Amino acid sequence: MGENPVRFGILACANIARKVARAIQLAPNSTLYAIASRSLEKAKQFATANGFPSTTKVYGSYEELLDDPGVDVLYMPLPTSLHVQWATLAAQKRKHILLEKPTALDVAELDKILEACEANGVQFMDGSMWLHHPRTSRMKELLADSTGEVSFIHSTSTVNEPPEFFDKDIRVNPGLDALGALGDLGWYCIGAALWAKDYQLPNAVTALPGVKQSSAGVILSCTAALQYDQHHKTVAIIHCSFFSHSSMDLAVVGKNASFHLNDFIIPFQEDSAFFDFTRLAKFAELHIGWNVKPEKVVVPNELPQEALMVQELARLVQGIRKAEHRPDTKWPEKSRKTQMVVDAVKKSIDLGCVPIYL
Amino acid sequence: MGENPVRFGILACANIARKVARAIQLAPNSTLYAIASRSLEKAKQFATANGFPSTTKVYGSYEELLDDPGVDVLYMPLPTSLHVQWATLAAQKRKHILLEKPTALDVAELDKILEACEANGVQFMDGSMWLHHPRTSRMKELLADSTGEVSFIHSTSTVNEPPEFFDKDIRVNPGLDALGALGDLGWYCIGAALWAKDYQLPNAVTALPGVKQSSAGVILSCTAALQYDQHHKTVAIIHCSFFSHSSMDLAVVGKNASFHLNDFIIPFQEDSAFFDFTRLAKFAELHIGWNVKPEKVVVPNELPQEALMVQELARLVQGIRKAEHRPDTKWPEKSRKTQMVVDAVKKSIDLGCVPIYL
Repeated sequence: MGENPVRFGILACANIARKVARAIQLAPNSTLYAIASRSLEKAKQFATANGFPSTTKVYGSYEELLDDPGVDVLYMPLPTSLHVQWATLAAQKRKHILLEKPTALDVAELDKILEACEANGVQFMDGSMWLHHPRTSRMKELLADSTGEVSFIHSTSTVNEPPEFFDKDIRVNPGLDALGALGDLGWYCIGAALWAKDYQLPNAVTALPGVKQSSAGVILSCTAALQYDQHHKTVAIIHCSFFSHSSMDLAVVGKNASFHLNDFIIPFQEDSAFFDFTRLAKFAELHIGWNVKPEKVVVPNELPQEALMVQELARLVQGIRKAEHRPDTKWPEKSRKTQMVVDAVKKSIDLGCVPIYL
Repeated sequence: MGENPVRFGILACANIARKVARAIQLAPNSTLYAIASRSLEKAKQFATANGFPSTTKVYGSYEELLDDPGVDVLYMPLPTSLHVQWATLAAQKRKHILLEKPTALDVAELDKILEACEANGVQFMDGSMWLHHPRTSRMKELLADSTGEVSFIHSTSTVNEPPEFFDKDIRVNPGLDALGALGDLGWYCIGAALWAKDYQLPNAVTALPGVKQSSAGVILSCTAALQYDQHHKTVAIIHCSFFSHSSMDLAVVGKNASFHLNDFIIPFQEDSAFFDFTRLAKFAELHIGWNVKPEKVVVPNELPQEALMVQELARLVQGIRKAEHRPDTKWPEKSRKTQMVVDAVKKSIDLGCVPIYL
């Protein structure tokens, strides 16, 4: 547990909160301190059903959790439309924030949250767990050292949802999560493209024809191109859908090497992950076979990526608490750029798949 | 060798002809009968350097090869701009044709070739070797049986060419191969998308911004989207480039399953090939890991895919020779649809990346 563990409060009993609650308990520098729902009964049931420690405080309103001085960090798996209200309030109450993605309905809303965080000296981080896996760091090293300038990025995030999902899930409710698949799934693809380009923003973002939307206008499936005008003219393709078999592909092709993985968001298994890396491949004599085959690079991880995310946030919070440093601006910047590109894809769709220049 | 092996003549000493000459010798129903260059000396050198049988006839002009009544099939690895002239003439001389891709500079030229083939009762096939690998058939079975309606296709073909390539290679010479990377590499990606969609033509084809062209207008790198308007609105992304590390990725994602491979054009090794197949994958409880991991489906092949291509063509020629059947229209139809989409990508690029409706 370490000294002075960072105390997490969970604001809302979403399904994903079960995974993050486990992560909070696995992270050595954090503790599961409290949970709140809008109903005390629901919060109690959730805590019991998920085996929360008996010491976990249980609240029947979000306000009570926000007012508890013992809470250091709020994890907020709320419907997207509620983020700006509750995250801003949390920052004003000097709570550090772990906000589920998509961070907001648009960057204007996110900016309100980030301004409140900055004004109150609190750390902000979104719930992109994969960024914290050591596999991601290993790929970044290869990108820096071996890949050469990136020329092409391909990323998908698809899930085949059952029919009832389209009737009632909050992720397709226009009042709660109007960004639909773009916010829920495309967030990861866009984040991966930005990550591969060291968070340079693309010059233009264009949604491709073939978008599927619900009758209420919620995006259910879309594809988009992110275009960089610089010398190497990188193109990144992102594709997200609620209608396709589970996929979470990431391919990054550079001048001298490429890597491929098909589980970049949630690794196939919890204790290690791999990617295929190919460098300086040529075709063999007569173009029969390859001289180099992909190397399977395996990266073990002692903690699951979501626990590493919690641990990193708690580490930053401990530093702020001890006045060793200010909040790390890297995390809100990553979120903000991702949200900007999400917004651009949405705008391109709304305007009939025209290019949106950033 | 079998009875009455089909006699292949090779028209032009291209580098790729070395691979196909070997394939002709490996195929049990075909024989390497003759080679022609515009220079007798060059043809002799080529035959010697590549260990051709001493029985192989050697010609110092294309016309002599065309006039040799012993030739059943002409394999033509000529620069694309020369295809229409020589392939039409070959058909008129009643030679069956194995034509390197891209088949022509545009579909109007290809139609002249195909009309000559039809008028003269000769078989036409293009040199897309990967279509003949048993791995491709195995994937097709899974597409029909398990994948469900295809929703997304992703395909790349990239090679990192050295600087001197851009000065002198015929594949970037505007007078010889004006289609550049689109014809040489994109041909495969487009072919793969059509293959996955059972050769339905897309409704629209749109090149994406970020195209790289030489000063003479030859396409060196491009990305395009093929869009299907039907209920499932399939989107296929194709990407080809002379500037990137070797890649030949194909991913097909359907409703219930997906497959992935990174060597679809030239398998990593010659005697077997594999792909990753994932069906009905869900995330495990708490979204920690997957309940199903990709299955590595290994498909052995007794002959290399290029020998299987030669064998299939020779089988068709034997049937025609015995008057058992007419030329198989499947192969020219596949080539023609691929060429149509190549043309549409080119037109979209020429018009500033607008959608081209087919």
